[in-house]
Amino acid sequence: MEFTAATIAQFLQGIVEGNPDVKVNNIAKIEEGQPGYLSFLANPKYEKYIYTTESSVVLVNKDFVATEPIKATLIRVADAYQAFAFLLDMVSKARGEKKGVSKQVEIEPTAKIGENPYIGAFVYIGENARIGNNVKLYPQVYIGDNVTIGDEAILYPGVKVYYDCVIGNNVTIHAGTVIGSDGFGFAPSEDGNYKKIPQLGNVILEDYVEIGANTAIDRAVMGSTIVRKGAKIDNLIQIAHNVEIGENTVIAAQTGIAGSAKVGKGCMIGGQVGIVGHIAIPDGMKIAAQSGISSNLRNDGDVVQGSPAFGFGKYQRCYAVFKNLPDLRNTVIELEKKVKALEK
Amino acid sequence: MEFTAATIAQFLQGIVEGNPDVKVNNIAKIEEGQPGYLSFLANPKYEKYIYTTESSVVLVNKDFVATEPIKATLIRVADAYQAFAFLLDMVSKARGEKKGVSKQVEIEPTAKIGENPYIGAFVYIGENARIGNNVKLYPQVYIGDNVTIGDEAILYPGVKVYYDCVIGNNVTIHAGTVIGSDGFGFAPSEDGNYKKIPQLGNVILEDYVEIGANTAIDRAVMGSTIVRKGAKIDNLIQIAHNVEIGENTVIAAQTGIAGSAKVGKGCMIGGQVGIVGHIAIPDGMKIAAQSGISSNLRNDGDVVQGSPAFGFGKYQRCYAVFKNLPDLRNTVIELEKKVKALEK
Amino acid sequence: MEFTAATIAQFLQGIVEGNPDVKVNNIAKIEEGQPGYLSFLANPKYEKYIYTTESSVVLVNKDFVATEPIKATLIRVADAYQAFAFLLDMVSKARGEKKGVSKQVEIEPTAKIGENPYIGAFVYIGENARIGNNVKLYPQVYIGDNVTIGDEAILYPGVKVYYDCVIGNNVTIHAGTVIGSDGFGFAPSEDGNYKKIPQLGNVILEDYVEIGANTAIDRAVMGSTIVRKGAKIDNLIQIAHNVEIGENTVIAAQTGIAGSAKVGKGCMIGGQVGIVGHIAIPDGMKIAAQSGISSNLRNDGDVVQGSPAFGFGKYQRCYAVFKNLPDLRNTVIELEKKVKALEK
Repeated sequence: MEFTAATIAQFLQGIVEGNPDVKVNNIAKIEEGQPGYLSFLANPKYEKYIYTTESSVVLVNKDFVATEPIKATLIRVADAYQAFAFLLDMVSKARGEKKGVSKQVEIEPTAKIGENPYIGAFVYIGENARIGNNVKLYPQVYIGDNVTIGDEAILYPGVKVYYDCVIGNNVTIHAGTVIGSDGFGFAPSEDGNYKKIPQLGNVILEDYVEIGANTAIDRAVMGSTIVRKGAKIDNLIQIAHNVEIGENTVIAAQTGIAGSAKVGKGCMIGGQVGIVGHIAIPDGMKIAAQSGISSNLRNDGDVVQGSPAFGFGKYQRCYAVFKNLPDLRNTVIELEKKVKALEK
Repeated sequence: MEFTAATIAQFLQGIVEGNPDVKVNNIAKIEEGQPGYLSFLANPKYEKYIYTTESSVVLVNKDFVATEPIKATLIRVADAYQAFAFLLDMVSKARGEKKGVSKQVEIEPTAKIGENPYIGAFVYIGENARIGNNVKLYPQVYIGDNVTIGDEAILYPGVKVYYDCVIGNNVTIHAGTVIGSDGFGFAPSEDGNYKKIPQLGNVILEDYVEIGANTAIDRAVMGSTIVRKGAKIDNLIQIAHNVEIGENTVIAAQTGIAGSAKVGKGCMIGGQVGIVGHIAIPDGMKIAAQSGISSNLRNDGDVVQGSPAFGFGKYQRCYAVFKNLPDLRNTVIELEKKVKALEK
Repeated sequence: MEFTAATIAQFLQGIVEGNPDVKVNNIAKIEEGQPGYLSFLANPKYEKYIYTTESSVVLVNKDFVATEPIKATLIRVADAYQAFAFLLDMVSKARGEKKGVSKQVEIEPTAKIGENPYIGAFVYIGENARIGNNVKLYPQVYIGDNVTIGDEAILYPGVKVYYDCVIGNNVTIHAGTVIGSDGFGFAPSEDGNYKKIPQLGNVILEDYVEIGANTAIDRAVMGSTIVRKGAKIDNLIQIAHNVEIGENTVIAAQTGIAGSAKVGKGCMIGGQVGIVGHIAIPDGMKIAAQSGISSNLRNDGDVVQGSPAFGFGKYQRCYAVFKNLPDLRNTVIELEKKVKALEK
């Protein structure tokens, strides 16, 4: 799609400054602009780029005052960042509109599919599955028996959902992610072998949850592993059986959460964090990347860091001393000698 | 499926106390029970829940003595936990019985399939593959050329097994896991480019191995990457080329084991552990989560922790001092001043 | 395939010593040899194995002098390691030659496929995709709309490439890897909910890049996430939106790189490393396994280690003191008492 500056300005209720007929068909950061691209300038820190950008059109705030000549066509709007975000959304929506059902799918006769679906090639849908309206199942998705999927959900290519799991409305799951695999439960026998403990629960993803690529969320032993409304889970994350993730909690890539841990709402958890089983993380907790949480924590407003983790500021001060430990030891050795001499 | 308390009691050779006609169709922990659910009470610690549970039926030990009124129907059995585990197994087996071969599969004519298979939609089976009896290949599984799969194996949706790999009897592999991808072997050239070292070996998973979801086990350069009998490997684990995992070793999620490392039998390895290449982990070793193992270790019965790891107890004591390092440093600075004063 | 020692010697321009008619059909390390296998001896450290190996044929250097009797047939060549590597390459190439297009694929009519493709069963290729010559797409691969794939690329089973991504010539991607999933971008609202920031850029993998299994590389917000020419990325790695990985950089398994970080060329990054967003790693940097990089680093030629990371040698010395911190603290306590006594 290609639009003129005039069309975009009309759409955004903005004012064109420069050539209204210049056309753009793509978007870029102002510092990475090229001819045919649209960019925006909101943060004064980036002002210098507007004098050198190759972008053809730049959205700016109404009150922006240039101090040097500008090559690009400007569109003045009330809020350049908001206007740009609005355009991003439009582009995004225009792109994603896959529709229809491929001929090469296998849908069990007892499954029920809602209105206006997209079901890509090589999708399998199991017995008694219930798929809502306006759902998009990209190619090679697997939906097990008795799975429920809400309206407006998007499952990208190759997502696998095991039997009995429940996916809410407006849930998005990225490619390769597995929902509902067996929890890791084995009971040791006297002969050293392990006996599998059947994992008979399920996984529930509430509305507006988004899950990244190649993540794994195990089904509960009994009951449910639950990701609450609006939580955002990144790529390559491990969520074990019977875990509960609170509302609007955000978890960065490669973090692992062991069995039956309960993470509060509104938490922010960095990448590669490990949380042991059967503990509770309070609401609003912030955990720095690579930390290990091995016991229940109080949320005193500080970020925690370390393995095991404690207050971020304190950790930083301890680590600063750690980096000079050989000097500290030498000082102590020196003191020992001096004290010995004094004692004589 | 729905059963009365009387039917279950008969099946378990137990004695009903309460309404024998009440029906259950699901199971739950006693503290999460609901009408229509069956629970159990074995650990006296949980006794309080039996007086408040909403479960319709609860299995209890023969000698259980109630101290308050109980709403649920009880079934008294010799061992409530064992009886419950037995029921879980029954439920689990009743559920999993997928059978038959989808019409939408691609099986090379030279492949041989055993008796009573389940081969789901969009499965590919390569040339000269040998599939045992009672094997379940869920939808979108890929079996490469010359792969051998033993009897009773279950490969969940989207598992990928590269050519020449060998999967034993009673092996279970969860969705998205990759078996036999190329080991990470590249030889640096003088010009800074890397030349790939062909990875011509395979992966062998012995009998009763279970592998979680989205794990990756690389094929050997030459010879085999081996997971020995009964080992249990969780989700998102990396096992590099030529690694060997001992019998009945259990490895938690997101652990990584580098090339040619040899892990003994009966080990317990926590989540997010890293083990460097070409070292040996002795039999029965226990490694705490997030540890790094960078050299050969002795197994002195202690769990190891840290990166690099050493004894758990010792690590805990060191870490306790670490958390107060700024104070220790201040004490030393203070001492320096005092000694200086004394020396005058 | 089976070859006599004489045939192999002729092929390698070597000289047979022993039975020229003995046949081999496989290869093994000299210490793991079996009848019918070919091995090599280059490193004198391994000489002892040549006297006990069960391999039928061993490649040795021209000037090798045996000190004991040898059962195997020898082939003397100028450089035994090079000759062996050459044979590995031949075996590898002989094996991989998949060809043709399965009947069970879905290829949009607007897609363009180059000459001599292999397109396995259940592959989906989207609208306006451009696939080069001699490309191999193994079963269950997904290629989104507008994706470009260069010549000689190999995508193993189940690889998913989202729309608009660009894959160079001679790129190899292992099973289960996801290219172009949405970056993890959400803007917090005042009510605690998060609003998704559309991720409209793409991923570019330049020529000769190799990616392992079950890795995830997110598309850029705008612009591109880029992996430069010849970089090698192992299994289960997370590469976030707008990251750039330099030419010939090598990254081991389970490492995670956060948004907009820029990794230089010729770097060597160990397993389970974490790199925070928006920082730059200089060319040629070496980072030890499990390290955390939280700020821009200078490359002073040392490997870095720790979380946060600093010089490897210094880290080792600090960690040595850390392992004896309780003793150091006790010494300080002892000193305090002595100084107090002296002060009296």
